[in-house]
Amino acid sequence: MLIEIQANAIATRTRILQMAAEQNALAASIDTGTGSEMIAIGTPLDPMVESLSGVLRIVTNHKAFAIASLDARGKSTVAVGDVVIGNGTPVIMAGPCSVEGRDALIAQAKLAQAAGAQILRGGAFKPRTSPYSFQGHGELGLQMLADAREATGMPVVTEVMEPDQVELVSGYADMLQVGSRNMANFNLLKACGRSSKPVLLKRGFSATLEEFLMSAEYIMAHGNPNVVLCERGIRTGDTAFRFNLDLNIVPGVQAVSHLPIIVDPSHGTGRRELVHRMALAGIAAGADGLAIEVHPDPDNALSDGAQTITPDALRHIVRRVHALSEVLAETEIEELGILEASA
Amino acid sequence: MLIEIQANAIATRTRILQMAAEQNALAASIDTGTGSEMIAIGTPLDPMVESLSGVLRIVTNHKAFAIASLDARGKSTVAVGDVVIGNGTPVIMAGPCSVEGRDALIAQAKLAQAAGAQILRGGAFKPRTSPYSFQGHGELGLQMLADAREATGMPVVTEVMEPDQVELVSGYADMLQVGSRNMANFNLLKACGRSSKPVLLKRGFSATLEEFLMSAEYIMAHGNPNVVLCERGIRTGDTAFRFNLDLNIVPGVQAVSHLPIIVDPSHGTGRRELVHRMALAGIAAGADGLAIEVHPDPDNALSDGAQTITPDALRHIVRRVHALSEVLAETEIEELGILEASA
Amino acid sequence: MLIEIQANAIATRTRILQMAAEQNALAASIDTGTGSEMIAIGTPLDPMVESLSGVLRIVTNHKAFAIASLDARGKSTVAVGDVVIGNGTPVIMAGPCSVEGRDALIAQAKLAQAAGAQILRGGAFKPRTSPYSFQGHGELGLQMLADAREATGMPVVTEVMEPDQVELVSGYADMLQVGSRNMANFNLLKACGRSSKPVLLKRGFSATLEEFLMSAEYIMAHGNPNVVLCERGIRTGDTAFRFNLDLNIVPGVQAVSHLPIIVDPSHGTGRRELVHRMALAGIAAGADGLAIEVHPDPDNALSDGAQTITPDALRHIVRRVHALSEVLAETEIEELGILEASA
Amino acid sequence: MLIEIQANAIATRTRILQMAAEQNALAASIDTGTGSEMIAIGTPLDPMVESLSGVLRIVTNHKAFAIASLDARGKSTVAVGDVVIGNGTPVIMAGPCSVEGRDALIAQAKLAQAAGAQILRGGAFKPRTSPYSFQGHGELGLQMLADAREATGMPVVTEVMEPDQVELVSGYADMLQVGSRNMANFNLLKACGRSSKPVLLKRGFSATLEEFLMSAEYIMAHGNPNVVLCERGIRTGDTAFRFNLDLNIVPGVQAVSHLPIIVDPSHGTGRRELVHRMALAGIAAGADGLAIEVHPDPDNALSDGAQTITPDALRHIVRRVHALSEVLAETEIEELGILEASA
Repeated sequence: MLIEIQANAIATRTRILQMAAEQNALAASIDTGTGSEMIAIGTPLDPMVESLSGVLRIVTNHKAFAIASLDARGKSTVAVGDVVIGNGTPVIMAGPCSVEGRDALIAQAKLAQAAGAQILRGGAFKPRTSPYSFQGHGELGLQMLADAREATGMPVVTEVMEPDQVELVSGYADMLQVGSRNMANFNLLKACGRSSKPVLLKRGFSATLEEFLMSAEYIMAHGNPNVVLCERGIRTGDTAFRFNLDLNIVPGVQAVSHLPIIVDPSHGTGRRELVHRMALAGIAAGADGLAIEVHPDPDNALSDGAQTITPDALRHIVRRVHALSEVLAETEIEELGILEASA
Repeated sequence: MLIEIQANAIATRTRILQMAAEQNALAASIDTGTGSEMIAIGTPLDPMVESLSGVLRIVTNHKAFAIASLDARGKSTVAVGDVVIGNGTPVIMAGPCSVEGRDALIAQAKLAQAAGAQILRGGAFKPRTSPYSFQGHGELGLQMLADAREATGMPVVTEVMEPDQVELVSGYADMLQVGSRNMANFNLLKACGRSSKPVLLKRGFSATLEEFLMSAEYIMAHGNPNVVLCERGIRTGDTAFRFNLDLNIVPGVQAVSHLPIIVDPSHGTGRRELVHRMALAGIAAGADGLAIEVHPDPDNALSDGAQTITPDALRHIVRRVHALSEVLAETEIEELGILEASA
Repeated sequence: MLIEIQANAIATRTRILQMAAEQNALAASIDTGTGSEMIAIGTPLDPMVESLSGVLRIVTNHKAFAIASLDARGKSTVAVGDVVIGNGTPVIMAGPCSVEGRDALIAQAKLAQAAGAQILRGGAFKPRTSPYSFQGHGELGLQMLADAREATGMPVVTEVMEPDQVELVSGYADMLQVGSRNMANFNLLKACGRSSKPVLLKRGFSATLEEFLMSAEYIMAHGNPNVVLCERGIRTGDTAFRFNLDLNIVPGVQAVSHLPIIVDPSHGTGRRELVHRMALAGIAAGADGLAIEVHPDPDNALSDGAQTITPDALRHIVRRVHALSEVLAETEIEELGILEASA
Repeated sequence: MLIEIQANAIATRTRILQMAAEQNALAASIDTGTGSEMIAIGTPLDPMVESLSGVLRIVTNHKAFAIASLDARGKSTVAVGDVVIGNGTPVIMAGPCSVEGRDALIAQAKLAQAAGAQILRGGAFKPRTSPYSFQGHGELGLQMLADAREATGMPVVTEVMEPDQVELVSGYADMLQVGSRNMANFNLLKACGRSSKPVLLKRGFSATLEEFLMSAEYIMAHGNPNVVLCERGIRTGDTAFRFNLDLNIVPGVQAVSHLPIIVDPSHGTGRRELVHRMALAGIAAGADGLAIEVHPDPDNALSDGAQTITPDALRHIVRRVHALSEVLAETEIEELGILEASA
C-alpha cells in the first residue's frame, strides 16, 4: 500500500509506521519531490488510514515494486557526491575494471576525467568466475579509490560483495555497486538498504524487468531511496557477443519507474569496438548515463581488456554523447507532449 | 574463395565461372564499387587462378559468409525504386502491418509519406501463428500496394512466403521481404536470389549474427547482391516485451559485413510506447533505416495494433531521427578516424 | 469452435461444412477414436448448430490449437507404414543425417534395423546453414530411400523443404518431415496438410509450446490429422551443448494435446556421448519414440558426425529403452490413476 | 595445477602447500578414493615438484574447474548424515518449500519419509522476489528443522543466504544449500568452503555448465570437497513453464566432473502435474537423486504451491524411480562398457 502524506504530518506519519509495525510489515518512504512524502507499507493497512489528517491519497493497485514505481512519485534524481544522475544530462562513469595500483589509478582517473568522466568506477572487491583469479585488492583498493577521488575530485563507485562489507565500502566510496551476479542476493540488497550511500544496481544476466525493479524495491523498502539502475547486457544464444545490451529495458523501466537508469556498453557487448555505438544507442534510448571501462593500455589491463577502451576513445564518445543529448533535448521540448498524446 | 578481377576482364571471368561449374560449385559476384568485381566461388579453385590476366587478388581466409563480408567489398548501398539504403541518410519504411483495403491503404500511405516515410510497407501474404486468423489479401493485396505506389510514388516492400510466390510478388513489389520465421527457409532464399528485386531479410527470433549473415549469403550466392538486413527483436525470457530489440547486432554486422542494416522497433518491442525511443536508439547504433508499423487507428488495425503507432507519432520520430542523424554525421566526420585508431 | 458429431450424421456434417464455407472459415475433422467425429471450424458458428441431428456436443472454450488439443479427442496414434506411433511402445527412427549413396544407405538401413530401428530416417533435401555446403542428393536421394525401404521393409521419413516438394516427396516417403527451421513456414505446413502422408513436425529452436502446437494445428486444419511432434533441442546461452533438449515439453504437450511426441537426442545435444542418456531420459519423460542419427562411421559421415552414434551404440540404447519402457508400463498400470488424483 | 601424492607423503604435502603459500596461491585437496590425495594449486608450481618423493603425477592441462573435474579423481560420493549421494541408488530429498511451523514440519517430515524421502528439505531463510513477502522463520525455522530430524532421523538440508549465516546454519543443518540466485555469490561460496558441512549447489537460472562447475570449484578450493550439484531449470522464452529443466547438464557434468548431481523437477517445471514425469526423466538421464517440494496441502502451502505435490504423489514417484533405477543398473552392468567403446 502506498500512502501519500503532507511533509509536515508528523503525527500521522508516526501513526502509520506504528500500524505497519503492529503487522510486522516493512515501511519505507520517499520524498515525492512535490512537497509531500510517499510511504510504502508491505501489507494493506485498514483503509481508514485515508481519513487521517495530512493523508493526501492512498494507492492500493500499485505495481509490486511499489516505492520504485511511478505510482510513488515522478522521475527521481540521485546525487553521487555533487554529481546528479537523472536530471537530463548524461552522467559518465568510467575507469578500469580492476583497481591495479595507487599511482596507476590516479593517473587513469585523471585521464578519464580529462576525457569527460564525472564519476570514477573501479573494482577493489572483484567477483571472478575462477577462485584462482585475482580477487581484487580489497580494502587496499578502496583506499586507492579514495586517493584517486582526493586527486581528482571525482566521486567513486565500487562493488560491494557481501552484507558485511557494506559498512567498510561505505567508508570509502561515494556509491555502492551491486554486481549482476548479486542482483538477487537479497541479504546484500537489505544491507545496502540500510546504508546512507546511493546504490548502483546492475541487472542480472537473465533478470526480467520486474525482477530488476523488485531488487531495487528491496533496497528502497529497507530504507535507501537512492537507487540507480544499470543495464549491462543479457545472456542470449549468440556467441558473437559476450552479452547482448538490452536497450528495451531503458524506456521499459521509464514507463513504470521513477528511478534513473544508466547503460554499460562495455559488459553489454564484451567487445571494445562496439562500445562507441552502443554508448550512443543507450543515450538515444533515454539512459541517464553510461558506465564504461577505460584503461590507458587495454590489452594489458588486469581484467576485461577485450571490452575496455582508451581514454582517447572515451573522449570522442563523450563528445558525441553530449551532442546527441543536446539535440534530443531540443527536439523533445516541443514534441514529447504531442508524441505521448498520439502514441 | 573470393577472386577480385578487373571490371573488363571478360575472358578471365568466363574462365573462372567455368572452373567453378566444373566443380559443381556456386559462383556469384558483386560490384566492389571501386571499379572491380568480386567473385565468390563455393569451393577453393586451383591457386593458379591468381595468375590469370585481370585477377587483382584472391582471398582464401574469408568469413563463411564470403560475398556478404567486408572481405568482398566496402559498405554497400541498395536501391529500392529511387530510394537508396545505406548512403548515410536513414531511410524510413512505414505502413500498416496488413494491407486492409485499397482506399484505406492509399490514405495510410499518404499519411505515412507526409510523416516522412520513403518506402511503403504492408503485408499481402501474412504469416499468422493461427491457421484460423486472417492470412492477408494475397494477390489482391499486392495490387492494392501497387495502387498505393501509383498514388504516392513510394516504392513498396512486402513479404513473400514461398519460392513459388517470388515471381508473383516481384511483379508488384519493389522489394521482397523475407520474414523472421523464414530466415532459414533456404529454398525461399534461393528463389529470392534468382529475383532481380532487392530483398529485405529479417532476422530470426533466435538467429545468431553468423546465421543471419549466412542467410544473406544464400540470397547473394544465388545471384542477388541487393540484400538489406533487418533486426527485429530476439526472444528472451522477459515477458515485459514481446521481443527484445538487439542493437548489438547493428555495429556487430557492420564490423564484418558491407550490407545495409535497418531496425524494426515495432516488432522489436511489441509495445507502441517504446517504438519512439528504440527507433532513436537504432539510428544511434548506426542503423541505415527503420521499419515501423503505422496505422491511423492502431487499436482497430487488422493485426499488430499493440505495437503500431499513429502517423502523427511517426512524424515526430522522423524529425528527431533526422536531427540525430545529422548531429552524428557532423561529429563523425572529424572523430571517427581517431576513434577507430584508438579503440 | 469444435463440434462433435455421430459418425454417420452425413447430412449434418455437410450442413456444418457449408456453414463454415459461407463464412470463409477453415473446417477440418478428426476421428475421435470413440465412434464419433470432431469437426473444428475456424470461426464460431451459430450456436443453433448444437441442435442439429447427430451433434453430440460443441466446445467453444477450447485451446487456440483446437483440433490438436485434448478438447478434440483423447491420445491419438499415427501409423507410418505399418509402424504405429503413440500406442505405448517407443518407436525408434534412425539413420544417417544425409543420404550418401544407394548401397551405403541400404547397408546403413540394415544395420539400423538390426539394432532395433523401425523407421528409417535420412535427408535427401538438406537444409544447410551455408549455401556452399552439400545440399543433399534431392530426388535421387528419395529414390535411394525408397530402395532402402524395399530392401528392409522399414518405412522412411525424410524432410520436405518447400510446398512444391510435398507431392514429389510424398511419392517416395512414408512420412514427411518438417524441419526446425521451417516449423513456422506456414505455406509448407498448409501443403503438408493437403498431403495424405503423416507428418513429423520438429520444434523450432526457440518455439514455445503454444507455437509448436499451433504449427501442428496448421497441418491438421488443412486436412491432415496425422501429425507427430518432435522435440529436438532449444537454443540457450550454454556453449557446452549445440542445443538443449527440452524434455519439459513432453509432459507439457501431453497435458494439452492428443498428438504423439518423440524426442531427438542427437540434435538435442549435439554430442554423441550424451545421446544414450538423453534417449533414456526422453522415454522416461513419456515420449512415444526417438529419432537418432546413426552411421557406421560417424567421423566420416557427410554431415552431423559429432552427434551421430554407431549402430552398435544404438542397439544398446534400444535394449535399455525397451527395458525402461516396460518397467514404466508395469508400474503405471497400478499407479497412474492415484498419481493424477493426488497430484 | 593438480598434483597427486601418496596418502602418507606428509613432508611432500607440507612442502607443496608451502610452495603454494609463497605464491599466494589457493591450495586444496581431495581424497582420490584410490589411496592417494589430489592437491589443486591455483597457480602452476615449479615442475620440479614432480620429482618430490611421494608425488605420483602432475596434471597441468586440466579443466579450469580443476579439483571438481575428472582430472582430479573418479566419481565421488557425498555423505549427508548417514545418507550417501552418488553411490548408484537415487537419493530423495523432499519437504515443504518453507518451514511453516514445528508440529506441521514434523508431520510433513514423517509423511515425506513414509513416502520414501531420505533427506528433509525446507527453507528457514527464504530468498523471495518481493521484500514484502514472508522471508522465512530464520533461526526459529532452523530449530524446527533440527526437531524434525530428531523426530524422524532424517538429515536436513536448508538454504544459507550470506557468509555470516554459514556458521549458524551449520549448527543446525546436515547440509547447506546455496540457492540459484546465489550460485555466483562468490563470498558465500568461499564461506561454504570453510564449513565442514556438505553443500548442495543449485545452478543459476542462466548459468553455463562451466560457470556451474566453477562455482563448485570455489567451494572446493576453499576447503570443502563435499559438493553436490543440483539442476533446477533454466530460463527460456517459453511461458508454458516457470523454468525449463535442462537435463543435458546431467550427462554433460558427468562427462567432465566427479561430483554427484541431482535434479529438482519442482522448480524445474513450476507445475506440479509435470513433476512426476520429469523426476523419472532426471533419473534416466543419470541423476544421483531428486529434490522435490512436498506438502500435504499444496494449495495452502506458504510458498511455491503450484509446483508442490502431495506425499501420496511422492510415494508413487519414488516407487517408479527405484524400479527404473534398478532396471537401468541391471542393463548397465553388461552394456555400458560396450556403449562407451562404440559411442
